[in-house]
Amino acid sequence: MHSNLKKWSAEFIGTLWLTLGGCGSAVLAAAFPEVGIGLAGVALAFGLTVVTGAYALGPISGGHFNPAVSVGLAVGGRFSWGELPGYVISQVLGAIVGGGILYVIATGKAGAAIGGFATNGYGEHSPGGYNLTAAIVTEVVMTAIFLIVILGATAKRAAAGFAGLAIGLCLTLIHLISIPVTNTSVNPARSTGVAVFGPDIAVSQLWLFWVAPIGGAIVGAVIYKALLSNGKDD
Amino acid sequence: MHSNLKKWSAEFIGTLWLTLGGCGSAVLAAAFPEVGIGLAGVALAFGLTVVTGAYALGPISGGHFNPAVSVGLAVGGRFSWGELPGYVISQVLGAIVGGGILYVIATGKAGAAIGGFATNGYGEHSPGGYNLTAAIVTEVVMTAIFLIVILGATAKRAAAGFAGLAIGLCLTLIHLISIPVTNTSVNPARSTGVAVFGPDIAVSQLWLFWVAPIGGAIVGAVIYKALLSNGKDD
Amino acid sequence: MHSNLKKWSAEFIGTLWLTLGGCGSAVLAAAFPEVGIGLAGVALAFGLTVVTGAYALGPISGGHFNPAVSVGLAVGGRFSWGELPGYVISQVLGAIVGGGILYVIATGKAGAAIGGFATNGYGEHSPGGYNLTAAIVTEVVMTAIFLIVILGATAKRAAAGFAGLAIGLCLTLIHLISIPVTNTSVNPARSTGVAVFGPDIAVSQLWLFWVAPIGGAIVGAVIYKALLSNGKDD
Amino acid sequence: MHSNLKKWSAEFIGTLWLTLGGCGSAVLAAAFPEVGIGLAGVALAFGLTVVTGAYALGPISGGHFNPAVSVGLAVGGRFSWGELPGYVISQVLGAIVGGGILYVIATGKAGAAIGGFATNGYGEHSPGGYNLTAAIVTEVVMTAIFLIVILGATAKRAAAGFAGLAIGLCLTLIHLISIPVTNTSVNPARSTGVAVFGPDIAVSQLWLFWVAPIGGAIVGAVIYKALLSNGKDD
Repeated sequence: MHSNLKKWSAEFIGTLWLTLGGCGSAVLAAAFPEVGIGLAGVALAFGLTVVTGAYALGPISGGHFNPAVSVGLAVGGRFSWGELPGYVISQVLGAIVGGGILYVIATGKAGAAIGGFATNGYGEHSPGGYNLTAAIVTEVVMTAIFLIVILGATAKRAAAGFAGLAIGLCLTLIHLISIPVTNTSVNPARSTGVAVFGPDIAVSQLWLFWVAPIGGAIVGAVIYKALLSNGKDD
Repeated sequence: MHSNLKKWSAEFIGTLWLTLGGCGSAVLAAAFPEVGIGLAGVALAFGLTVVTGAYALGPISGGHFNPAVSVGLAVGGRFSWGELPGYVISQVLGAIVGGGILYVIATGKAGAAIGGFATNGYGEHSPGGYNLTAAIVTEVVMTAIFLIVILGATAKRAAAGFAGLAIGLCLTLIHLISIPVTNTSVNPARSTGVAVFGPDIAVSQLWLFWVAPIGGAIVGAVIYKALLSNGKDD
Repeated sequence: MHSNLKKWSAEFIGTLWLTLGGCGSAVLAAAFPEVGIGLAGVALAFGLTVVTGAYALGPISGGHFNPAVSVGLAVGGRFSWGELPGYVISQVLGAIVGGGILYVIATGKAGAAIGGFATNGYGEHSPGGYNLTAAIVTEVVMTAIFLIVILGATAKRAAAGFAGLAIGLCLTLIHLISIPVTNTSVNPARSTGVAVFGPDIAVSQLWLFWVAPIGGAIVGAVIYKALLSNGKDD
Repeated sequence: MHSNLKKWSAEFIGTLWLTLGGCGSAVLAAAFPEVGIGLAGVALAFGLTVVTGAYALGPISGGHFNPAVSVGLAVGGRFSWGELPGYVISQVLGAIVGGGILYVIATGKAGAAIGGFATNGYGEHSPGGYNLTAAIVTEVVMTAIFLIVILGATAKRAAAGFAGLAIGLCLTLIHLISIPVTNTSVNPARSTGVAVFGPDIAVSQLWLFWVAPIGGAIVGAVIYKALLSNGKDD
C-alpha cells in the first residue's frame, strides 16, 4: 500500500507537471509578442516535462504520466494490468490539478483570455483546420511509434540510462510534427486536464483523445511484440 | 577550510555563470532584430548554464548555484544546514559579479539602454502584466517541482550521470513556461545579481524572489520526503 | 531468417519514422503562421527521429535508416555487404510508407496544398536557389562527415551509449546548415519517400540524392579508415 | 608519427567541421526568409559541431578543435606543450579548408553575396555595434569559463561520458549570449578560417580573436588550478 501510494504520487506529480509545463508553455509563452517561443518551444517543453519526470520519478513509478502509455506497456507485457486503474486515476487527477494551476496563473492578469487553453481538437478546433480522418491517423500513428520507442528504449538490450532522454525527446518530436493537426495529444490525461477548463468544444471532442491514443498505443505494442521483440531481453 | 574555499569558489563561479549566461542571453540577444533568440533561446541559455556548471563544478560543490536549491536540499536531508550560509553568500556574490560583467558588456555600445536588465517582477514589472497572485503561484510551484526533480534525479536509485542534464533542462522548461509571468526567477541570487544594476522597481520587488522560491523549495522538499522518498536509497 | 525479419522491420519502421517525422515537421509545422517551427524546428525533428530510432531500434538492426549509411558502414568494415540489399529495400519501403502517411495527413484539410512536400532539389528546386555544383558539394561533404561521426561515435573506444545522441544531433546539425541548399537529403530513402508523392521535378532530380549521399558516405568511410582508425578498437 | 598523424587529422577534420558547420549555418540559414534559424539556430549548430566532433574524434585527439582550448589545456596540465604547434597548425588549416568549402557553397547561386561571412569583429564590425572594450571583456570571460567547464567536465571525478555534451552545449550557450557582441569567436582558428574569405575589416580585426580567446583560456585554466582543482583526481 505504501509502495502504491508512492507510485500514485509519482504519476500524479509527473502528469501534473506534463500538463502544467507543456500546456503552460503553450498558453503563456507560445505567442508572446515578438519573442514568443512558438510551436518549437512548446514541443521542447512537452518533451522536457517527460525528460525531467523520467529521471526524477521514473525510478519510483516507471514514469508513465499517460494512460495510453500505461495501456501500451500492459499490452507489451511490461506493466501489470492490475496496476492500471490506480495509475490512470492518478494521472487524470494530476492532469486536472495541473490544468487548474495553469488556469489560476493564466487568468491572473487584466483582460486575460485563455482562448483554446491548449486543448486538443479536430475540424474547426484543429489549429490548422485538419479534419477528423487526419486527426485519427495522426494520433494513432504518433502514439503507436511513441510506444515502440518506449518499449525499445527501455528494453534490457538498450543503452542503460538513456531511455528518459529518448522518450522525452520523442514527445518533443511528436509535437514538432503534429501540433498543427490536433494540437497534439497522444495522452488522454493531458487532454482531459485542460479540457475541463477550456472551451466547450474541447470537451465534446475529448472522446477522440482517449480512443485514438489508446488505440495507437495498443497498435504500437502489438507491432513491437510481433516484429521487434526477441522475447527474452526485453 | 581549503575544501570550503573550493566549494565556495565553485558556487561563486557557477552562480556568476548562471546570471551572466542566462540574463546575458536575455539582455544581449533575445530581441536582436530579425534573428533574435527569443524567450526560447533565453530558456535554453539558463538551462545550459546549469548543465555546464553541473558537470564541471557539481563534483566540487554539488552544483547548487541557487539559495533556494541549497535550502531545499537542506530540508530534504541532502545538504548540511551548517554549510548554508557560506553557500548562499558565495552564490549572491557570484550573481552580483555576473550581473556586473553583463552591465559592462551591455553598456559598451553607443546609445545603450539596459531596459529591465532581465530583472524579475510582477504587476507592472511582469513581462506579460501578471499580478502578484499569479507571480507567487508561479514561483512557488515552479521551484517546488524544481526541487522534486533535483531530489529525484540525484537519488541513489536514479540513473547515474544524468542528473546534470535533467536538472539543467528542468530550468530550461521552467523558463519556457514562466518568463511571461515573472521573467522567471526560482533563484534569489540570480534575481539579486541583476536587480542591483537594474531599474528601481526590481529592487522594490526583490523580496518576492527571495520569499517565493525559498518557500517553494521547502514545499517541494517536504512533498518529496513525505510522498516519494523511500528513506534509504535517496 | 527470423533475425533478418526483425532487422528489416526495425529499418522499415525507423526509416518510416525518419521520413514521416522529419518531412512531416517541414510540411505541417515549419511555416505555420506566426508560431511555425521554422528550419531550426525541422532540423531538430530530423535529428530526433534518429535519436529516438537509435535508442529504440539500434540494438536490433544497428539503426541505419539510410542507404548511404549502410553503404558507408559496409565500406568501413562495420556492416556486411551481403546484408545491404535487404536493408536498402526495407529503408526505401519504410520511407515510402512514411511519405504516404504524411500525404494522407497533409491533404486532410480544406484547400490543402502540399507544395514541395519536403522533397530535395537543386537549381530552381533548391529552397535558396543554389546550383547543381553547390548541391553536390553540400551533399557529398555533409554525408562524408556524417559517416565519420557515425564511425567514430560507434567505435569501441568511444563513450558507450552516447552514439545515438551524437549521430542524431549530427543530422540536426547537417540540416541547420544545408536546408537552404538542397532541402538536405544525405539520405536517398528519405528523398525517395517524399519524391513519389511530390512535384515532378523532385523525381527528375532524385538521381542526385542517391549518387551524392552514397558517394559522400564512401568518401567519409575511406577517410576514416585511412586517417582515423587504429585498426583494432574500431 | 603515425599516432601524430591521426591526432592531426582528427583536429583538422574537427576544426573544419566546426567552422563549416557553425559558420555555414550562419551564412546559409540564419536569415533565410521567414523560416530562418536565427541566432539560436547558429548557437545550436556551433555547439553540435563540438558535440559530434567530441564523441567521434575526441578519443583520437582529445577533441580540442580550437587553439585557445589547446593552450588552456596545456596551462592546466592536461596537454603537452610539445604537441601544441602540431595541433594549432592542424586546427588553422582545417578551419581554412572549412571556410573554403563554405565559400564554394555560399557563392553557388545567382546574385550570391557573402556579406560578413560569419567573421568576428568589434566596433563597426560588431553585429550589435559593441565597442572594443565590450568585445575584449566578452571574449576573455567567455573563453575563461569555457576552459573551466572543459577542465571540470573532463576531470576524473566528473561523470564519465558526459563531457562531450557539457562542452559542446557550453559553446552553444556562449553563442546564445555573445553573438551580438563579437559574432562570438572564443576560437582563433574559427575566426581565421572565415576571415581569409571575408571582408577586409575581418582580417584587420583578427588579432583580437587570437589574443582575447587565448588570454581568456589562460585566465580560466589558472583559476581552475588555483581554486577548483584538488590536484589529484583532475
